[in-house]
Amino acid sequence: MRVALGQFNAVVGDLAGNAQKMRGMYADALQADVDLLVFPELAVCGYPPEDLLHKKHFLQDNRLALDKLAADCPDKTIVVGFAESHQDNNYNSAAVLQGGHQVEVYRKSMLPNYGVFDEQRYFIPGTRPVVIDIEGAKIAMTICFDIWNIDSLKNLLKDVGPIQMILNISASPFHIGKITKRQEIISRCAKEFNCALSYCNLVGGQDELVFDGRSMFADSSGKIVAGARAFDEDLLIADITPTIDGVIQVAPTQPPAPQPVGRIDEIYQALVLGTRDYTHKNGFTKTLLGLSGGIDSSVTAAIAADALGPENILGITMPSKFNSPDTISDAERLAKNLGMEFLTIPIEPILKRFDEALSIAPGWDSKGIAYENLQARIRGCILMSLSNQFGSLVLTTGNKSETAVGYATLYGDTAGGFAVIKDAPKTLVYKLAEHINKISARQIIPADVITRLPSAELRPDQKDSDSLPDYDLLDEILKGYVEEDKSAHQLVEAGLPRDIVHKVIRMVDRNEYKRRLCPPGIRITPKAFGKDRRLPITNRYSSFDDNKYSAHD
Amino acid sequence: MRVALGQFNAVVGDLAGNAQKMRGMYADALQADVDLLVFPELAVCGYPPEDLLHKKHFLQDNRLALDKLAADCPDKTIVVGFAESHQDNNYNSAAVLQGGHQVEVYRKSMLPNYGVFDEQRYFIPGTRPVVIDIEGAKIAMTICFDIWNIDSLKNLLKDVGPIQMILNISASPFHIGKITKRQEIISRCAKEFNCALSYCNLVGGQDELVFDGRSMFADSSGKIVAGARAFDEDLLIADITPTIDGVIQVAPTQPPAPQPVGRIDEIYQALVLGTRDYTHKNGFTKTLLGLSGGIDSSVTAAIAADALGPENILGITMPSKFNSPDTISDAERLAKNLGMEFLTIPIEPILKRFDEALSIAPGWDSKGIAYENLQARIRGCILMSLSNQFGSLVLTTGNKSETAVGYATLYGDTAGGFAVIKDAPKTLVYKLAEHINKISARQIIPADVITRLPSAELRPDQKDSDSLPDYDLLDEILKGYVEEDKSAHQLVEAGLPRDIVHKVIRMVDRNEYKRRLCPPGIRITPKAFGKDRRLPITNRYSSFDDNKYSAHD
Repeated sequence: MRVALGQFNAVVGDLAGNAQKMRGMYADALQADVDLLVFPELAVCGYPPEDLLHKKHFLQDNRLALDKLAADCPDKTIVVGFAESHQDNNYNSAAVLQGGHQVEVYRKSMLPNYGVFDEQRYFIPGTRPVVIDIEGAKIAMTICFDIWNIDSLKNLLKDVGPIQMILNISASPFHIGKITKRQEIISRCAKEFNCALSYCNLVGGQDELVFDGRSMFADSSGKIVAGARAFDEDLLIADITPTIDGVIQVAPTQPPAPQPVGRIDEIYQALVLGTRDYTHKNGFTKTLLGLSGGIDSSVTAAIAADALGPENILGITMPSKFNSPDTISDAERLAKNLGMEFLTIPIEPILKRFDEALSIAPGWDSKGIAYENLQARIRGCILMSLSNQFGSLVLTTGNKSETAVGYATLYGDTAGGFAVIKDAPKTLVYKLAEHINKISARQIIPADVITRLPSAELRPDQKDSDSLPDYDLLDEILKGYVEEDKSAHQLVEAGLPRDIVHKVIRMVDRNEYKRRLCPPGIRITPKAFGKDRRLPITNRYSSFDDNKYSAHD
Repeated sequence: MRVALGQFNAVVGDLAGNAQKMRGMYADALQADVDLLVFPELAVCGYPPEDLLHKKHFLQDNRLALDKLAADCPDKTIVVGFAESHQDNNYNSAAVLQGGHQVEVYRKSMLPNYGVFDEQRYFIPGTRPVVIDIEGAKIAMTICFDIWNIDSLKNLLKDVGPIQMILNISASPFHIGKITKRQEIISRCAKEFNCALSYCNLVGGQDELVFDGRSMFADSSGKIVAGARAFDEDLLIADITPTIDGVIQVAPTQPPAPQPVGRIDEIYQALVLGTRDYTHKNGFTKTLLGLSGGIDSSVTAAIAADALGPENILGITMPSKFNSPDTISDAERLAKNLGMEFLTIPIEPILKRFDEALSIAPGWDSKGIAYENLQARIRGCILMSLSNQFGSLVLTTGNKSETAVGYATLYGDTAGGFAVIKDAPKTLVYKLAEHINKISARQIIPADVITRLPSAELRPDQKDSDSLPDYDLLDEILKGYVEEDKSAHQLVEAGLPRDIVHKVIRMVDRNEYKRRLCPPGIRITPKAFGKDRRLPITNRYSSFDDNKYSAHD
């Protein structure tokens, strides 16, 4: 039996476009003489469609698109994910298409409702196992999370008899370390059921999420035999052959696809794809961003240039009297290195007029923190005005560390449409800078930018370290508190300094309102700000006050 | 049996503060010699705690606070909601406290996971009915959604035998029409089980939500016998007496609390409480807002003045050359009428410098839409700068109609911390204006403000009607499309003009990114923008293109 995994980049809601891509892969699969062509979870409508699933007409259109796909592709068996509406219940389903019609349907039984997933908001779980027969091989259908809990899967399949293959269609988003977990799950599953496992994953960026593809086949020993490309479309084909002794062999028909070289390369590719897809899928060609000569905007610009072409990026430096000649010239040098457009718009005259106007308000301080932030807000205004004028998307440049502690100006440097490195801690941003220089084999990001002490340059001689702990320490605290939901007590027990832990937690908690008003960015860690971490703004709980429940006594 | 419903205003995460309020009500209940004192769903930690529930230390602190409450209040039976962690599972539970200890616990069986609710993200459903005995009466415990599906409730209680009362602790948020539904459910439930029903609801604002209180008692005929105050704390007490013929009588010990007079008054009270609680619970005393002399900012200011006291509101008018003398003087008159502080900061000099600076960018148009929006962005900068300087919360003034179609400037008039009338359609804003004048028995909001044609005043002679359909029509389309998830086809079938329906739907869909970056506001309709309506930004689905699934053919 020859199986093809059609790992394609679907767009949420683009029923016609997604169908067109699948028809293209169907044509290739015909050429390759496959017996079974597989597409990802909810491939018909894209993943996650969120509250589009509350629109009855969306579900109807989704069904029409599926029927049309069946009619257009009658000569092979196709398995494809779609949102099924049946007798007023909705299911996350996999249709089996044969001879121009849907001949069978499997309904996802395990609906994830944690992290970024809200599937119990939309779907009813299926309870019926579905086994199809292709060329004499028995194939059990599963969808994504169905295989992540081996006990539930065993329970689902307990009465189906021997199977030669488990088919899994997925929309499994990327985060650091996810591929290893995924391979473990798939390997364990194949071994447990002593069968091959064909895993077809989605690829592409969708708002905060990047689906990394990397569809794969495992043989019945649990060995991952073939893997599709990462962060790109691919049609992965293999021959699956049961042997006399009950072993299921898997033989790919192509040489192995190149894979990311290490963790930083993987993250970099996720950021490039996430930026490209958010931009293009939302109808933008051009982007612009503020270039400060600092590491964050430099890395953001380099990622954008790779994702969209440097000719589509406009960098703007907006110096005030507090910006050093060094950072201004580094911004320009970076733009030149990347080959992108560059503009200098000094903000000093605007700042002066603002300061005069605000002095009308009794108590206005021309040297205080509001004045500092005003500079960032003027820059935000300039970027949004140019975006408005030219139809370009504004990329923001804040990293995860500063997003966490609110070391940013609301409606200032947070103003824009997409936050490329929002989920990258500052220490990772440095590694990305080095990676960018390494893969381009030249100093794209000037050495000064990497070695200079970070500064917001909003007052004379300002340094990040005036307000924040050392980034190594800050990022360690943030990983524990934000990503792992540890308490202050646990972090201090683990050897982190108590005062700084408390200070950081206080900053994180107090800045929820600010994060809520930041543009979406690409999730690369196991817990990003956004759908992953849903905290109330109004919240008096403190994770460090040991006697808080009796504080009013 | 004497039952007291302790309807109090909890703050999410404020374990000590919530406990203190409950101890206060316990003291009152002792005085009133009640047998049973009831507090709302998750009263210990506030509702909804969202991802705080992912913090183990939060769950532990929650348990400690409950134990301390039990110890502090040993002399009466108390039922109180808390987040229970038991053997690595979390439950939305009601504890029964007696003699200083928890003696029983009921776990919510129906977990809402729709609209603004995400309870399946956090909790496992309970399956065990709990009946307690107070003074010989059998009382079945339920939590909020448990009573909304009568069949599930019958199933839960099928083996418990005869009961004299159902107790329901709730955190049921307000929206227009909700109270009627709630009364129906409670009445049906009491009749069905032929018992009294004691319903204790939360009160208070929490981010987008306002809990309206209005706890109540129903007798076994289904009659609502007593109701607590709306949008305020209250301790509602009644005597519940089984008679010989199986009827359960309910007799309140107090005269009935005054209730809102009609739909607009109810909405107005919700907005006042939502504004007060968001402001105070987040640590602000002072607020500020831009006053344009238009209806939206006038109504927002009046609500804020009622909620916070006019001495805590600063209104700022920021005229450009496009603002008419009439609107400027109306802004000032409104501020005087309300007795709030008022400031005029002209933006013309700043606008001029911005325009000069932006002219550095080839293609900048000093008369285009970006220039129009720049005025709004300058105003946003001024308000945020003053907020920053004075520690005041910026209230934004956008209504639901303009929020829906994106008739607002991102990081301009949308810049701020809290959006008071974000869920009020424009046609409702006019009704609120009239209501405000009516209840104050004078022309707080100047007549001109109500009768003048709405305008953003960003270019000469601009009117909202240049860009938008008539607000009556717009609001009708938005109700169908946004709140009821109808398709263009359905709206046109219902008699709405096709071209305008399509135009409006296109505007709503395209502006998801903008809404995502607007501050939270008070939910008053059955579907507000926010947690209620979760649509992808990246979304190519169109609800009006009848052949979209084959558009690429």
